[in-house]
Order: sequence, then structure tokens, then C-alpha cells
Amino acid sequence: MNEFDLIGLLTPNLATNKSVVVGAGDDCAVLDVGVPGQWLLFKTDALVAGIHFTEVAPPEKIGHKALARCLSDIAAMAGTPLSALVTLALPRDFQAEYVQAMYRGINALAARFEVGIAGGETTTNPDRVLISIAALGTVEQGKCPLRSGAEAGDAIFVTGELGGSLHGKHLEFLPRLAEARWLVDHFTVHAMIDLSDGLAGDLRHILNASHVGAELFSKSIPVSRAAKLAARRESSAKPPVRAALTDGEDFELLFTVPSREAVNLVDEWKKQFPDLKLTCIGKISSQPGLAIRDETGVKPLTVDGYVHFQKS
Amino acid sequence: MNEFDLIGLLTPNLATNKSVVVGAGDDCAVLDVGVPGQWLLFKTDALVAGIHFTEVAPPEKIGHKALARCLSDIAAMAGTPLSALVTLALPRDFQAEYVQAMYRGINALAARFEVGIAGGETTTNPDRVLISIAALGTVEQGKCPLRSGAEAGDAIFVTGELGGSLHGKHLEFLPRLAEARWLVDHFTVHAMIDLSDGLAGDLRHILNASHVGAELFSKSIPVSRAAKLAARRESSAKPPVRAALTDGEDFELLFTVPSREAVNLVDEWKKQFPDLKLTCIGKISSQPGLAIRDETGVKPLTVDGYVHFQKS
Repeated sequence: MNEFDLIGLLTPNLATNKSVVVGAGDDCAVLDVGVPGQWLLFKTDALVAGIHFTEVAPPEKIGHKALARCLSDIAAMAGTPLSALVTLALPRDFQAEYVQAMYRGINALAARFEVGIAGGETTTNPDRVLISIAALGTVEQGKCPLRSGAEAGDAIFVTGELGGSLHGKHLEFLPRLAEARWLVDHFTVHAMIDLSDGLAGDLRHILNASHVGAELFSKSIPVSRAAKLAARRESSAKPPVRAALTDGEDFELLFTVPSREAVNLVDEWKKQFPDLKLTCIGKISSQPGLAIRDETGVKPLTVDGYVHFQKS
Repeated sequence: MNEFDLIGLLTPNLATNKSVVVGAGDDCAVLDVGVPGQWLLFKTDALVAGIHFTEVAPPEKIGHKALARCLSDIAAMAGTPLSALVTLALPRDFQAEYVQAMYRGINALAARFEVGIAGGETTTNPDRVLISIAALGTVEQGKCPLRSGAEAGDAIFVTGELGGSLHGKHLEFLPRLAEARWLVDHFTVHAMIDLSDGLAGDLRHILNASHVGAELFSKSIPVSRAAKLAARRESSAKPPVRAALTDGEDFELLFTVPSREAVNLVDEWKKQFPDLKLTCIGKISSQPGLAIRDETGVKPLTVDGYVHFQKS
């Protein structure tokens, strides 16, 4: 049983009430708490030492990453982050300087995006550091793209470059908040997700939620310099396109728009965000399944994204 | 350095914004997110295996406790819980049945108090189970009692009976949500907190935040049957009053009201909540410090509540 099987067991029976607009299964929960014209976005995300960061990762960057992951999920809903709480579970022999450095990373990113750190909790996790962030954001009612909105014929876009994030980007990335809001304000974004599990895995989340399929264009997938360098340097490294499909932790936006908007989107994007690549990497199809087109033809894509735990 | 010293180091420099009405340092953060006439309460709380529950604790009760602790903090702000997210960090060899049982405990309590479980996260914590709940609630603007509102002359009240919670109550308690809202609707509650660290420790939180002192009446402190039985059974057990002062995890309400309201409060409470004890246990004084009056006179109270980690 892996994490998605487990989630599938747990989510059908969750207690609910009328405030829950969108529950488990999207990048954030969506709540109607009575703000006129607005919905609340609600998200938690945890990082665990030895799993999401190593002992040698600078603590400022761990703090940065912990908050940035939550903000990236709020970006995937085209929201504006508002406030966050920090839960820190620490071994008994923790170093105060280490914890203060984590908080410096959190506070610097929070200040950059005007997020209020409204408190949190410290507790004991004897064997390793765990940091979990709970974040709130807002979005105009009806204007947050879900995973479930992709339609056959849509063009599939991705921001930035993919793969090799563990060589550094995963500790330093900036959430695509302004880009996501601009997209929703100017184009018909049918579905959106942030790339955390890897392009193949996260696109499958969109396809499953939308009951559609997709064809990716192998040649178009934007591969990061880090993934290309790794492939050149280490004979055991993944081929670059495979790294882009499966490495995970890219924290870029993956989204679909009607194909008639695709050309205009590319033009407008270049003017608006000249320093961030935007690439059309494929199209949504009506028949289920994920396929990839390369010089040899179209074949089913069998690789997966990152799965957190895999249990037989 | 203990947890309160660490929190003292971290909280002065938190990033903030105009949505934060009350940040770190009370039972919940208080946010103004634009709901007319209402504030949002925001809280996270984590339980760790081997720290907050043992391997033999029934998983339903662990789930119950995890959510109930957050709801108890919302009760301390006289709020109404709305929605929660569940973060579950699991060893790789987790049992699906164990996790499903935890969720049954969460869902049953959520349904009882009409809380929507809007999703959450599963991740890996290789060495032990950790469950963290993030909860949202609402409260009428200006009607949530803080820790900082106690005034000299106030009578100090506590609900229920204290001490010995680890003999069972800590896994089964119900948050005092209706009681707290009734109190605020009918009396002038100057300060309120829920008892998690123990009466002595939590009262000190109120005294420090309010810049006042207190005198407790030793004879009046309501000691639980569990604490009395333990003291009778085991020669090494704490004396009952000491257990009530320091055991922690009582999850009762501790609050202060102007002394002129005390008699009327006791009368009205009996009619409203005949099955739940309410006891006046002391009074707030203008000079700082916590003292206790017993048959031998008044002396400083030196015992402390539960401190999560204590590091030299």
C-alpha cells in the first residue's frame, strides 16, 4: 500500500460540513467561511529530516522550503497567502541556533509575500527534526482552478524547467504566486497543480481527477540545466527527459487552457514574465491514459512520479 | 533551554501583516480575514508516539485526542470550530488498520461538533507516528477572552476535576466548547485558557500575560478521583493536590471573572451544566507571583506545570 492507496481508504468517510467547498484531493482545501466574494484556502505540509532534507542542508533553507511548499500549493489554486502557523518537532538535544536559523528562512519568505506568521507550536520528536506549516490564503469565489477541470483538446503548459531539483532548487525555489494569479485573471485556466511529485505523477493527478488522458511531446519538455549536467556527469543518472518527468520537487505550475488560447498565452507571458520560461508540453485527450510522443512515435508513459511510501 | 525559552527567542521577530489580530502566545491565533463581525481562530497541535501516547493506546482514542486538543484551544477562545486538516507522519511499516482507526476517532469527534475534515497529508516519519491537526474556528469580533485580560480582584474558576488525566481522561475528554461560549455570552470573562500543562503552569501563563499575581485556595482545588486513587494506591504517587496542580492534560477551562459576578455565576452554572463541576479556586492579586493558601498560611507556589523539553 502506498500513500495514495492509503489516502484513498481514508478520504471517503471524512466528516464534513457546509463550509467545505473542496475537501481532500486538491492542492488546498477550499472553505467558505463567510468572507463576501471570497473563499479561504487551507493547507498543511510537513518536511522530515532524512526524507525531505539532509543533515547538511542549511537550516535557513529548510525553513524557506517548508513555507514555500505551502505557498506553492496556494499558487496552484491561484490564491493569495495570508497567514501561517509553524509546528516544529525537535529532538531533545536541538540547537537553539539551528531553530532560529530555520525561523529566519521562514520569516524572510513570509515577509516577501506578506504572510503573517501567527504562531505555532514546538514539541518533541526524539529522533529527527520535523517541520509542518499550516497556511491560509484567499481566492476570489469561483476563480480557483482545480485538478478536475481539464478538458479534451486543452493545451498543457508548464512554467520553468524540470528535473534535478535535489541538486539545489528544492531548497531555494520561489512559489509562482503572481504568475498563477495573472494566468487566472487573463486566461481560461481549466486545471492547475504545482509540481511536487514530478511531471508524470502530478499530470496523472490532473488526468484522474478530470477523467481525461494526455499526450506529452518529449521534445518540448523543458529540462533543467541541473538534470542535464547530472546526466552528463554520472553514467548512473537518469536520462534528462526522464529526470524531468519523475524527479519531483520542481514546484513549477502545470496547467491546461483551451487550445485556442495557447498562442496568445505564449505571447502575453513573454511580455509579462520575460525571465521565466513557459512551455506547451502536450495536449489533453478524451481517452484515458498518459502517452508520450517522441521521434519513434506515440507510446504509453509508464514512469511514475515520486511516491512517498511504497508498501507491499 | 526549555520550550518556553525557545518560543521566547523565536516569537519577537515573526513576520506579520494586518490580518493578524493576536499572534503567537495565546491558545489560538486570531485573524481578521474579512468575515463581517467575526474573527477566525487558527491553531495547530501535534501528538507524538512515546511522548503524548503509548504504543498500547487505542488508535481511535489517539485520533480523538489529536482533534480534541485543538478543539479545546478553540474552546479557550470561546470559539466555534469549523474545519480541520490532518497531518499524519508514519513509519514505513505502518498498519493501514491502525491509521483507519485513528481516522475513525477523528471523524466521530468531528461529526459530534460539526467540524469538517477538509483533507490533510500523509508523510514519512521513520521512527514513530506523529499526528498534527490544524484547526480553524470562528468567534464574534471582540468576544474571545485572551490570556492577558485578568485583573486584580478577579475570581479564578476551573471546570471539572484536575489531576491523574494520564490514567485515562487524556484520551477521552470532550472539549468544553458549549460551556465556554455560554460563559462569554452571560458573564464578563476577563481571561481564559485550557488546562494542558497543568493548573500551576497554565495559571502562570495567564499571570504573565496579564502582569498580575494570584492566590490559590488549596482546599478548594477540585482533585479528580483518578489522582486521589493513585495517591492512595502508590506510595510514590504525588499527593492529590500536587497532582491537580502539575499533572497536565486536564483540558478543562481555567478563567477569571470580576468577583462581583462569582456568586451569580456559580448559581447559573449549576442550572445550565448540572453534570460538570465549576469551582472557584482563588483570586487574582495585583502583586506578581503565584501563592497558595492552606491550613498553615499563604506561601509561594514553587511547583511547575508540564514542560515539554527541558535542556540545560
